[in-house]
Amino acid sequence: MSQPRALRVQPLTPDAFAAFGQIIERDASRAFPINQGRTERFHALAQVEALGEGAQGILSIFRGQPLEPLVITMMERHPQGSQAFVPMNGQAFLAVVAPPGELDESRVEGFLVQGHQGVNYRAGTWHAPLLPLEPDSDYLVVDRQGPGNNCDEQTLSQPIIPVLPGKA
Amino acid sequence: MSQPRALRVQPLTPDAFAAFGQIIERDASRAFPINQGRTERFHALAQVEALGEGAQGILSIFRGQPLEPLVITMMERHPQGSQAFVPMNGQAFLAVVAPPGELDESRVEGFLVQGHQGVNYRAGTWHAPLLPLEPDSDYLVVDRQGPGNNCDEQTLSQPIIPVLPGKA
Repeated sequence: MSQPRALRVQPLTPDAFAAFGQIIERDASRAFPINQGRTERFHALAQVEALGEGAQGILSIFRGQPLEPLVITMMERHPQGSQAFVPMNGQAFLAVVAPPGELDESRVEGFLVQGHQGVNYRAGTWHAPLLPLEPDSDYLVVDRQGPGNNCDEQTLSQPIIPVLPGKA
Repeated sequence: MSQPRALRVQPLTPDAFAAFGQIIERDASRAFPINQGRTERFHALAQVEALGEGAQGILSIFRGQPLEPLVITMMERHPQGSQAFVPMNGQAFLAVVAPPGELDESRVEGFLVQGHQGVNYRAGTWHAPLLPLEPDSDYLVVDRQGPGNNCDEQTLSQPIIPVLPGKA
């Protein structure tokens, strides 16, 4: 296996993340009042994709632990469904992703998802397994259940070490 | 309008809530390890219902404020889709619900949803609008987008005052 390479982790912005999916956060441009003004709805921040006959969106909880040492050696994708991760206790995580299609390791990007944000990976988006930064981090996960294969895994030819902003 | 009545709020348990939908919490009986054991998946705690052609599950955020005074005068239902609420910052809320079908006010029940729990209302379940207990409570909401009416509202013949456990 070749030497790992460093990957600079970026701030999460809608433009930068558009090729991979959607950001789930309180975006003022998507807000309107409901419940006699008592609730603000930030509407349709992400869409559940559950492709194929008999498939359905499901809600699960993932309790994750940090990857130590932080060296990513494989990525995976779900060709038939989206997969969203939203912190349940405000714990940030890393989203390391590559566009759908044949995995192009030169196009892997890393994002810091803050504790008040979530992400939704579009069907087929390559991503590293869950990368929380703190122990016992809980995420609500919305993904697909249904017939057929919905997980492809691929070992990286060169492992990746994400480097957080401000770190050497 | 008649005098409000008190409704005792119950602890949230799967049996007690079964007629209304599912509880979203780390239920050990639904757990298995993934990601080389680094993540525990509490699997398929709830199902997204998005009925009708062209309908889809969507993810939104609701930022809610407490109802003051805490007197419930109406309930609503979404006949074509489920609706899940999961705290994003650990803030408890009340779920005041009645079974699907014609609204039977004698069958309204109230539950305390703790900050580490969520609920998924099955399609057609009657429920009061979002009832957080603290200001600026954020919830991830998974519900349905699609053609046709998906919200019925009904004024209660007798308003309801939820009474929390341990309160007079």
